[in-house]
Amino acid sequence: MPDTTNNPNRRSWLDVHPTSDFPIQNIPFGVFLTPDDVITIGTRIGNHAIDLGALHQLGYFDEIPLTDDIFLQDTLNDFISDGKKTWRLVRNRIGDIFDRDNPALRDNKVHKDIIIFRMDEIEMQLPVQIGDYTDFYSSKEHATNVGTMFRDPKNALMPNWKHLPVAYHGRSSSIIPSGIPVHRPNGQTMPLGADTPVFGPSKRVDFELEMAFITTDANNLGEPISVNEAEDYIFGVVLFNDWSARDIQKWEYVPLGPFLAKNFASSISPWIVTLDALEPFRVATPEQDPKPMEYLQFSGKKSYDINLEVSLQPEGAKETVVCKSNFKYMYWNMCQQLAHHTVNGCPVNSGDMMGSGTISGPTPDSYGSMLELSWGGKNKVILNDGSERTFIEDGDTVIIRGFCQNEHVRVGFGEVSTKLLPPFK
Amino acid sequence: MPDTTNNPNRRSWLDVHPTSDFPIQNIPFGVFLTPDDVITIGTRIGNHAIDLGALHQLGYFDEIPLTDDIFLQDTLNDFISDGKKTWRLVRNRIGDIFDRDNPALRDNKVHKDIIIFRMDEIEMQLPVQIGDYTDFYSSKEHATNVGTMFRDPKNALMPNWKHLPVAYHGRSSSIIPSGIPVHRPNGQTMPLGADTPVFGPSKRVDFELEMAFITTDANNLGEPISVNEAEDYIFGVVLFNDWSARDIQKWEYVPLGPFLAKNFASSISPWIVTLDALEPFRVATPEQDPKPMEYLQFSGKKSYDINLEVSLQPEGAKETVVCKSNFKYMYWNMCQQLAHHTVNGCPVNSGDMMGSGTISGPTPDSYGSMLELSWGGKNKVILNDGSERTFIEDGDTVIIRGFCQNEHVRVGFGEVSTKLLPPFK
Repeated sequence: MPDTTNNPNRRSWLDVHPTSDFPIQNIPFGVFLTPDDVITIGTRIGNHAIDLGALHQLGYFDEIPLTDDIFLQDTLNDFISDGKKTWRLVRNRIGDIFDRDNPALRDNKVHKDIIIFRMDEIEMQLPVQIGDYTDFYSSKEHATNVGTMFRDPKNALMPNWKHLPVAYHGRSSSIIPSGIPVHRPNGQTMPLGADTPVFGPSKRVDFELEMAFITTDANNLGEPISVNEAEDYIFGVVLFNDWSARDIQKWEYVPLGPFLAKNFASSISPWIVTLDALEPFRVATPEQDPKPMEYLQFSGKKSYDINLEVSLQPEGAKETVVCKSNFKYMYWNMCQQLAHHTVNGCPVNSGDMMGSGTISGPTPDSYGSMLELSWGGKNKVILNDGSERTFIEDGDTVIIRGFCQNEHVRVGFGEVSTKLLPPFK
Repeated sequence: MPDTTNNPNRRSWLDVHPTSDFPIQNIPFGVFLTPDDVITIGTRIGNHAIDLGALHQLGYFDEIPLTDDIFLQDTLNDFISDGKKTWRLVRNRIGDIFDRDNPALRDNKVHKDIIIFRMDEIEMQLPVQIGDYTDFYSSKEHATNVGTMFRDPKNALMPNWKHLPVAYHGRSSSIIPSGIPVHRPNGQTMPLGADTPVFGPSKRVDFELEMAFITTDANNLGEPISVNEAEDYIFGVVLFNDWSARDIQKWEYVPLGPFLAKNFASSISPWIVTLDALEPFRVATPEQDPKPMEYLQFSGKKSYDINLEVSLQPEGAKETVVCKSNFKYMYWNMCQQLAHHTVNGCPVNSGDMMGSGTISGPTPDSYGSMLELSWGGKNKVILNDGSERTFIEDGDTVIIRGFCQNEHVRVGFGEVSTKLLPPFK
């Protein structure tokens, strides 16, 4: 069954600004608190939040096999478990309901008052209960920059890097939606030249520009997922800021990897954009040399052209864009990541999240972290208000935005915005 | 409110063999499937499984503030969320109900038929939904052995090891209860002397002798837990076999730590033994030099004397004990682990699990992995049936057992038993 919602000429009877990330061709999924303090699953068109629980109760999904309470939940996990066929039926049906030529809801003021809210009336929640969160390290430019800074510029990439999508497990409990502020973490660090570690607030708090995909139930313990089937198990994608404390990381990470340097917080954008919505923006994955092993060999275009940018906003000042990058730069694509993750039989469940790793591009203005932008703290990043940064300062807000754009349509993610607070006392 | 259930002279009206791990002084918590295919929360005395859901419905917990369905669930998470005061009230009440001098249930055959099953009639389940799983690396002997084998015997421990309890995040989705078999994982490895990696079944599948503790909701994002309060947030402890594929690990783990080498499976014993039950077996933690930082300094006895052993059982043959160790050898105790984990504000929830890391003792027969017992594959471990092992072979069952024993009472964990199957096809 093909996807029918991406027709670039379709318009909604809801008003949508031409630069909106959320035209009728997007139809993302999220969870929000209504003005009546009810948690519901919803979607968004323009600046309108649409209550899918109410829409279902009023009979608008009657032709789709759905349980009665599928949207009356505080997470998307059960809906995601219903599988790709159901996601697509629901998304296409939403497209039909809000098509400007469809009078059913358009001309029903009573129903519209129940179903539609302004974005400023509702409060976005974490869209899924994340069972397991994995972070990949799949940008060659990022891995090369880090390897050049900390090891050897001539051998910046580790020997395994081009053979497998390197990854590690992260912490699910500290993943938060856009808008929740984060305290600067305390921890142990080893000052340069010291021989004993010290305790205190991190001095090198950083963002990481990432995207993350959300999976459905994919496999049982012991069973791998093939690279060419992997797409069927990816529900959608969000923007992801993987907060990092570089000085804590440097001291703690040998030999088992990052821990407290990462698990104090990770922020995601609240609307999950489906792979179907990203379909028009498929592009080829960068050439992989050496040729990957068979279980990582895929066919077709498995990468996506998604413009990304990061802004820094000091307290009371205007934003400065500090980085522009693109999801298409990733060396390993999402299908390869999921195939690798399960090749040993590791089970993947509904609501699991997999981060891309920092998405740096080829030029210095496309580096996806302050670590790279300031080249390990050596260079100052100048902001619009004249202030300088090497890392993130208390009171700064970090905003990641992302969107796809072709000559017909723009499909975007909105933003993930997180303010850094002083250390907890 | 003190714990009243550890009186060593108390006996139950249920028969308990003198060598049982489950006298009336234990009263662990678990989840099982009854012969009528109902999932319930239960406890165990001797070889009797006790249905706490039925016990509650019949009014035996009426004096304790509990929701009606607290034991009619397929995980212990909600009960654990009720907090230490409630766990203790329930455990003490169970002790009273099954005290040989209490006729209330003892003399009520109708109720007993509803409440009590033989262990061979029921099927143990995973006791908790594990949100996040962290694995520590807290045995000095294990870290020293690994460091000696792979790096430098003179600098076997990394510089950070004695300053903080090193840890990494693991995968929750592949944690399974005792009895579920595991396939030998496929993956990439780099053969010795080769310059390109190969794909296939791991040739170095290993167990890791660990214990793990289960937490309750401990803190909000941003708030640390102090080392001396940490105990209040630990519900109980299980045996833990952290399956490992050493050859996959060696190739993949740089620079972000173990991933596919670990996440194909981790097995736990199904009964969670509470800290209250372990109270008589508290011992001092080994001396820590250098003195840890203030947030890791604790008072009192925070370690536990728990005898541990690992048996290997080839298909159709008898078991051979290959390792005897003790939980008391751990350099960092559970309270230090939990304080460290949260010092940066990382939130810990009900049902989270934290593994100790491999628990090796000071002598070669106390090493907690085949990697150490065979010293990197150089030495053969001889089994009772005359066969030899360096790592685990297809068809082998690995059984970890653990118990505390003083002159009055034995409190144990039962076992975690897992068979290794050939690679998935």
